[in-house]
Amino acid sequence: MLFGGIEGGGTKFVCAVGDEAGQIHQWVRIPTIDPAHTLDAAIAFFKKQEVLRNERLAAIGIGSFGPVDLDPASEHYGYITRTPKEGWAFTDVAGPVQKAFPDVPVGFDTDVNTAALGEQRWGAAQDWDTFIYLTVGTGIGGGGMLAGRMLHGLIHPEMGHVLLPVREDDPLARGVCPFHPNCLEGLACGPAIQARWDAPGETLAPDHPAWDLEAHYLALALVDFMVTLSPQGIILGGSVMHQRQLYPLIRQKVRALLNDYLVHPRLETLEDYIVPPGLGDDAGVRGAIALGQAALAAD
Amino acid sequence: MLFGGIEGGGTKFVCAVGDEAGQIHQWVRIPTIDPAHTLDAAIAFFKKQEVLRNERLAAIGIGSFGPVDLDPASEHYGYITRTPKEGWAFTDVAGPVQKAFPDVPVGFDTDVNTAALGEQRWGAAQDWDTFIYLTVGTGIGGGGMLAGRMLHGLIHPEMGHVLLPVREDDPLARGVCPFHPNCLEGLACGPAIQARWDAPGETLAPDHPAWDLEAHYLALALVDFMVTLSPQGIILGGSVMHQRQLYPLIRQKVRALLNDYLVHPRLETLEDYIVPPGLGDDAGVRGAIALGQAALAAD
Repeated sequence: MLFGGIEGGGTKFVCAVGDEAGQIHQWVRIPTIDPAHTLDAAIAFFKKQEVLRNERLAAIGIGSFGPVDLDPASEHYGYITRTPKEGWAFTDVAGPVQKAFPDVPVGFDTDVNTAALGEQRWGAAQDWDTFIYLTVGTGIGGGGMLAGRMLHGLIHPEMGHVLLPVREDDPLARGVCPFHPNCLEGLACGPAIQARWDAPGETLAPDHPAWDLEAHYLALALVDFMVTLSPQGIILGGSVMHQRQLYPLIRQKVRALLNDYLVHPRLETLEDYIVPPGLGDDAGVRGAIALGQAALAAD
Repeated sequence: MLFGGIEGGGTKFVCAVGDEAGQIHQWVRIPTIDPAHTLDAAIAFFKKQEVLRNERLAAIGIGSFGPVDLDPASEHYGYITRTPKEGWAFTDVAGPVQKAFPDVPVGFDTDVNTAALGEQRWGAAQDWDTFIYLTVGTGIGGGGMLAGRMLHGLIHPEMGHVLLPVREDDPLARGVCPFHPNCLEGLACGPAIQARWDAPGETLAPDHPAWDLEAHYLALALVDFMVTLSPQGIILGGSVMHQRQLYPLIRQKVRALLNDYLVHPRLETLEDYIVPPGLGDDAGVRGAIALGQAALAAD
């Protein structure tokens, strides 16, 4: 069977066709311009793949940047809602895809819940049913599962906006989030690093003080997530986490902050508890294929 | 049918027998002395009720102070684990009850998850399947549900230990939690109020500055829980919340901190979003009866 997956990001839409095992057979990267052009190009990619392979898609999954409407009873189900991204506020994303493939189940969720699903199927979370997937890049977003169910609620998690104490030696006067002076995203996303050190993070040396501060803020947030959800593990992805030196720093700081309050063998070193995505940068799009499979199974 | 419920707290065990509708027919309060005496007295209460009513209990639910072991595969399932409370570390709580009533399903969970279950059955959370129950008293603990399942994970939530920025005008040099200088419990539990103002909270006037600071810390924590779990509502119980002036203060501060970032009709006033327990101070013990019913249904 052939599945379609869309990882809808603020910069690019990655579309792929893959199989039951989540192996990707073909993919394309479409810039996130205006909704009509981007969604048309995504649909055209899938249509073309169907022709080339002489096989219909069995289902499509869409993991979208947010905020999104996940309430099946809502008139705006499948929409990106109140985003500051120009032209994308209140855009129906799932609708046009469903219309183009009327007989095919279409799954829709947040980008981070979708990546979490991919990690549970084929990545680092295969042994977990309660865990968090956090992406640290241009923004910071978190999703995950509890007892095998993706994290939905009144809306959906917005973990990037957890409020943190600002460290006294932080050279940044306030975080870059326009809503919150001291939320995780505002203090630790890629643009915050750039604003703080006047240089993009990827140009800073691995021993630059930027990384100690970055690890500090991420560790504070992870402790908050751990005491709120008690996850069996935490996956940290996104472009900022390409800085591999962050993982041991974050583990060490989480241990120091917890101060032996939570006692469990899995929390002793955190080596297999705070981990990179098993699927690397493909977690999002392979997760979208898994989401398509889940939509088919639920159909 | 007759159900037994135990609300096991650090100061007292409240035991009750009740019916399918969660109505309590008889109850007793047993001081939390040493485990043998307290558990024996609880079991004796239930045995006596069976004789008086000439009816066997159909199931028993236990909501216990923690940390507890909720992993059915663990050798310490049903235990209170590493508590600082003298004599209670690694105490089997569910085991002796099960042994005394060998043919009866015994449910076991945290005190706060159990109270949350009671609120969902008969209290303020009847329309919610994803919500938080936070108790603010001698300690601060949080539980709740996601998609109708109680919050379990690697261990269980410990929401009192979310880390907060200390407000500059806080006269307390550090929180009273021995593990964390700035966690919610350390800054906002009853003993923190007493340490900060040199008087028990219940003796302070409703317009004392204590309550603005208390509402501030609780609001910061609620924002963290809201962005992590996206609950459909939050129930605030416990003795500190007998100060009813806290509810409007907390709602106002949560709105200010969120700063319109999360958009949903239910978040506009928060009047029916941040609420007292519908069952008042009976949420714990009626929840325990609901937990017994759930254990029977799952049996």
